[in-house]
Amino acid sequence: MPIPSYLSLPPPLKTHFRGSGGEREEMPRLVETSFLSPSTAAAAIIRSATARLLLTAFTILLVLHLAISPPSKSTYHSLFLSFSNNATVARHLIALTRRPHVAGTPANAAVAAYVLTTLSSSSSLPAHSVLYDVFLTYPLGRSLILSPFPPPSPGPTLAFDLVQEIYPGDPYADVAKEVLPTFHAYACSGAAAGPAAYANYGRLEDFAALRAAGVNVTGAVVLARYGKIYRGDIIKNAKDARAAAAVVFTDAKDYGGGGRGRFPEGPGMPASGVQVGTTYRGIGDPTTPGWASARGCERWSAAEVAASGLVPAIPSLPVSARDGEAILRTIGGQVAADDWQGGEGAPLYRLGPGPGFLNLTYIGDETLATIENVFAVIQGEEEPDRYILLGNHRDAWTFGAVDPNSGTAALLEVAQRFGKLQKRGWRPRRTIILCNWDAEEYGLIGSTEWVEENREMLASRAVAYLNVDCAVSGPGFHASATPQLDELLKQASEKVQDPDNSSQTLYQSWIASNYSSLIGRLGGGGTDFAAFVQHVGVPSVDMFFGGGYPVYHSMYDDFVWMGKFGDPMFHRHVAAASIWGLVALRLADEEFLPFNYISYASELQRSAKILEGDALGLPVTFAPLYKSIKKLKKAATEIHNERKALERNFLSLNWRKDPLKVRELNDRLMMAERAFTDRDGLFGRVWYKHLIYGPSMQDDYGSKSYPGIDDAIEKAKSSNTSESCSFVQHEVWRAARAVTQAALVLNGKFT
Amino acid sequence: MPIPSYLSLPPPLKTHFRGSGGEREEMPRLVETSFLSPSTAAAAIIRSATARLLLTAFTILLVLHLAISPPSKSTYHSLFLSFSNNATVARHLIALTRRPHVAGTPANAAVAAYVLTTLSSSSSLPAHSVLYDVFLTYPLGRSLILSPFPPPSPGPTLAFDLVQEIYPGDPYADVAKEVLPTFHAYACSGAAAGPAAYANYGRLEDFAALRAAGVNVTGAVVLARYGKIYRGDIIKNAKDARAAAAVVFTDAKDYGGGGRGRFPEGPGMPASGVQVGTTYRGIGDPTTPGWASARGCERWSAAEVAASGLVPAIPSLPVSARDGEAILRTIGGQVAADDWQGGEGAPLYRLGPGPGFLNLTYIGDETLATIENVFAVIQGEEEPDRYILLGNHRDAWTFGAVDPNSGTAALLEVAQRFGKLQKRGWRPRRTIILCNWDAEEYGLIGSTEWVEENREMLASRAVAYLNVDCAVSGPGFHASATPQLDELLKQASEKVQDPDNSSQTLYQSWIASNYSSLIGRLGGGGTDFAAFVQHVGVPSVDMFFGGGYPVYHSMYDDFVWMGKFGDPMFHRHVAAASIWGLVALRLADEEFLPFNYISYASELQRSAKILEGDALGLPVTFAPLYKSIKKLKKAATEIHNERKALERNFLSLNWRKDPLKVRELNDRLMMAERAFTDRDGLFGRVWYKHLIYGPSMQDDYGSKSYPGIDDAIEKAKSSNTSESCSFVQHEVWRAARAVTQAALVLNGKFT
Repeated sequence: MPIPSYLSLPPPLKTHFRGSGGEREEMPRLVETSFLSPSTAAAAIIRSATARLLLTAFTILLVLHLAISPPSKSTYHSLFLSFSNNATVARHLIALTRRPHVAGTPANAAVAAYVLTTLSSSSSLPAHSVLYDVFLTYPLGRSLILSPFPPPSPGPTLAFDLVQEIYPGDPYADVAKEVLPTFHAYACSGAAAGPAAYANYGRLEDFAALRAAGVNVTGAVVLARYGKIYRGDIIKNAKDARAAAAVVFTDAKDYGGGGRGRFPEGPGMPASGVQVGTTYRGIGDPTTPGWASARGCERWSAAEVAASGLVPAIPSLPVSARDGEAILRTIGGQVAADDWQGGEGAPLYRLGPGPGFLNLTYIGDETLATIENVFAVIQGEEEPDRYILLGNHRDAWTFGAVDPNSGTAALLEVAQRFGKLQKRGWRPRRTIILCNWDAEEYGLIGSTEWVEENREMLASRAVAYLNVDCAVSGPGFHASATPQLDELLKQASEKVQDPDNSSQTLYQSWIASNYSSLIGRLGGGGTDFAAFVQHVGVPSVDMFFGGGYPVYHSMYDDFVWMGKFGDPMFHRHVAAASIWGLVALRLADEEFLPFNYISYASELQRSAKILEGDALGLPVTFAPLYKSIKKLKKAATEIHNERKALERNFLSLNWRKDPLKVRELNDRLMMAERAFTDRDGLFGRVWYKHLIYGPSMQDDYGSKSYPGIDDAIEKAKSSNTSESCSFVQHEVWRAARAVTQAALVLNGKFT
Repeated sequence: MPIPSYLSLPPPLKTHFRGSGGEREEMPRLVETSFLSPSTAAAAIIRSATARLLLTAFTILLVLHLAISPPSKSTYHSLFLSFSNNATVARHLIALTRRPHVAGTPANAAVAAYVLTTLSSSSSLPAHSVLYDVFLTYPLGRSLILSPFPPPSPGPTLAFDLVQEIYPGDPYADVAKEVLPTFHAYACSGAAAGPAAYANYGRLEDFAALRAAGVNVTGAVVLARYGKIYRGDIIKNAKDARAAAAVVFTDAKDYGGGGRGRFPEGPGMPASGVQVGTTYRGIGDPTTPGWASARGCERWSAAEVAASGLVPAIPSLPVSARDGEAILRTIGGQVAADDWQGGEGAPLYRLGPGPGFLNLTYIGDETLATIENVFAVIQGEEEPDRYILLGNHRDAWTFGAVDPNSGTAALLEVAQRFGKLQKRGWRPRRTIILCNWDAEEYGLIGSTEWVEENREMLASRAVAYLNVDCAVSGPGFHASATPQLDELLKQASEKVQDPDNSSQTLYQSWIASNYSSLIGRLGGGGTDFAAFVQHVGVPSVDMFFGGGYPVYHSMYDDFVWMGKFGDPMFHRHVAAASIWGLVALRLADEEFLPFNYISYASELQRSAKILEGDALGLPVTFAPLYKSIKKLKKAATEIHNERKALERNFLSLNWRKDPLKVRELNDRLMMAERAFTDRDGLFGRVWYKHLIYGPSMQDDYGSKSYPGIDDAIEKAKSSNTSESCSFVQHEVWRAARAVTQAALVLNGKFT
């Protein structure tokens, strides 16, 4: 469930797949090609890459050089970048996305086998799988019937077919039947009927606006559109507004392709396209909250899961733009505000409820299914007990060419380059673990169960976790990180070529894209870094090219879409693999961990200022927090200077003499992030231990800084009691104490 | 509040202070001697120690040997044992116990200054203080009036004077006025009146017996005797039984000296002696639950503290045996059972309530006071970031000759020996931290605030915490430990001479004392290891000679009592310092941490079996726990073999080559204990994070294994619902998961 689809559409591509323009005969003929043989598409890329000759020459020279002198770690890092190969990435993506592969299905087990084989055979890395039995849901039955007028009025009714249509010439037409019927994972099974009411993006403020307009949605079937918040929160908001059920559609205004047309002509979502996805508002297997879903483990009953309030309590269905508009045409009442309206050609949106009347049924198959995380491990030579983890998920709602297998293809590309480096004699200082997660789409289940199972081990050993979910959905590099990794990210991006303009570095295009803040933060619940950051406190990174894309979580997220619109030359995939691997290599190989906590302190200061603004008018002081940040900044500066001094010493003497000194400093850098977690967790959602970054209460996709303070401010503003204000102050104190603990750890001194 | 006074009295002493027998003129003339000059008592010891000549000769030989070859660590350890000096220990005890020194008073600040000076000057160790502002209470006003018949009956009333009497010739007579009026710390201020009722030891079963006998104590003033459970729990039980107030006395049967007479003639509590102490049922400063009481920090209000339920909600007073008996003489009604009766010469105990009627008043001064922890640090040479902590508290309810300054004297003895070792060239591999805590008596406050302040740092760096509270109250060695330290404790005791029989080792006398289980466990809340073990999961030890003693927490716990009854020759103090320091030295110096988790697994198995017996009849399986213990045992055996293999390698090669390999293994040994803690803590008392060892719900002094399971079983047995049985199973699962996490950490392998 990774990338929210409400980011802006990618601009028109600069490079195109074979000149682009609908030359569909060049698309991969999947049925004819053998499993691993390059498709014509990939072959075309290889043939077209004349630059490869030069590259090969460079590689030969490099190898000769290496044969003479023992290469330095940074030489290997350059070599890693030189290994880039867009043909193999494309081949991997084709192989990974031949069929829909939802978590817990045989199709996804087959993809796991492909990943395992590629890691162990073609990359020569020791690989293994870890299985969990987890609670998943699949659609058994669905129906949605629309009457223009409420019963018992006679009149025509429309039973939606809820089918995503195959387009003429679709190379995946044969396997399209394997795509699951459109549904919401963990939706509440049941039937509901009521007048249709329109609730815009289904946010709290949208329901508040309805109330303000005198529109009562009690007993109604709420129609909301995707695009601003996590769908699980839309349904919860509908339920809290006493709706009987929720229907969520992909409005053409947001998903139609923005003037560039609908797939296959343009990148937009076809009129019949449906965005499926999970509605679970927790993390990990809902039946094993806080512990691993090992076979035979303790497990909550369905009743306990329902009582947790984290799965929907009203039925829901996702529908297409076409079906959404059909419903809207039957909704009368007040005309919706301008920013609630659809795009060009859309009917006039009104609020209702009614007269249009909806009958909705959903029956889910709730079952324990086996999921499979795949790992490859490159043992560290000097510090095998320090881990750099690279993670991506494998399971997809449909074909998953963008989500997530562009990332899986990049992971395999990284693995193969690592394998080649090993053949040239490279041995990382620290252990590198490549992770391919399962069941992310259902609620980050594969990664979360594994983190829960290995929690204490990770807490004492994990240096960093580097996540890539959808590696590519278009141009434009995006990254989020815990802030001690900001500098490393920037430095690495200076070594990687911009995939869309070979005359500049990735860093140059990245800063030119001019986002308000260059690097995002990792409080959101949208992808697999969540357990690492928010449960254990592991410094982490998340990266991708592109962002939101219209066919997200629909049947059209396939290799054809990728080849035409996402990454025609697969240079972005290569760049994703390059920066991912380079960041990992620097973390794994450098004597001193490339962590900078000075930027962490600045970030904390910046976020505190913003929150202080939000709390304006409340009798709360942020002074304790500022004081603690000052301490952190001082400690960060001191450890920075300490490192410089040690490096100088090592240059003049023989640094090998005291590896424990290096280790001591590195341990402080590694453990400081852990100290931002508090064992008691966020109030009311104790699994979330990190007090600096956590998901927004209103939108699981949204990242909040100081989530505990933020929650408390929200509550204080709405209830306005002295108790609620004291609670804000308490949360400020808690955050301040966590920052102070981190400063002490970084300092390496006790009071 | 350390050692519960209900342990058996020490047997008659084998050695005596100058032949003993009341030669009181030999007692220290405190007023005349200068602060540091040896008292006559101490001088006598020096003169009498003819063995010192031989010792000096041995030391000279040893020094000569050291001058020739660089000494090994174990040579230093032998040297450490040879430095033993009972004269200096006695001198320290005299100096420390010249005046009563309750936490937060100038007298205790003066003792802190003495400790700081001794550490820094005479031991040449860098020492510093850490101050906290904590919530303490002192008695402002008290009264207790007894009428033989309830009002409005006329008749004589007796107002107890509540004074502990000075005996003729008491060398501390001058300073006795500085002893605080007898009180219960954190007692509820207020007045209460009601018929007196007798409740034996104030346990839950005692109140149940009263109910069964038809005795209703609602509105009564309950009289209970000390000796079986923590006084805070006695008062809570009285309150839960709806009593109006509680009076607790030291029954002569338990505290009178057991036929050997009352102090000063015998070791027993004088008839006017009163055991004071805290009644707080939490840990650390009650106004800062979970965080450090730094100046200006967040702080709970008095109302919030009261709402926590951890401070008494009814007034209470401690009284002497004489006052207790006076009250009992006025109680009529049913005759109490035989085991509720007093000793020889006591009146017949009846249950009441009434006709005797008590009016009780207590007014406490509730205040923020400054407390002072004193530290000395010996920086580790190779692993400065690994800590071995030795801790003892300094604050005393009165003079504190046993509790706690016998331990403080031993700490200073250890420090001086370490100082001497340093002069001979010894540098520990790891950092040693000597800790002298304040405000332990009020609720382990000094240690707890410091652990809370440095929690994250300790979690990543603390190897072990070694506690000594009352080092000596008589003969007989006792030790408790987290079980990976059992073997080390035994080995160390084999190197130390039995202080009461020079022909055998401490180990020989220890095992001969034939306790049902040689080494106790650290779940209790009675002394300063609690925060280390139960909040952070630091492997720990607690040790002492003697145990319960009659004058505990009374005015008579002074140097005279110690010199006559506790440790006339101060050999036990020396032995305490020897084993304490030796355990620390081995932990600080050995390449591989001397931790053995095989015994931990055996202990877990043993305790699980016992609990399984307790749960007999409940529909609960312990299979998950046994399975996890099996995993731990396997991991423990593997790491044991791994270490052996590494040691063999190191012998054949040059082990210096890879200190990181040693570190990796040691880190696993150190961090495995952390994994027994669960971040969510014990149900209903979340500060307690350790799932293997925690205090009993019924008696804060009592150590429980698997406290979460134990609590759940108690509840299930009393409520007998299917929900409560499921909860037992859930707690079994939680413990099993913690043990599994520990096994993974010990293994150093992830799934």
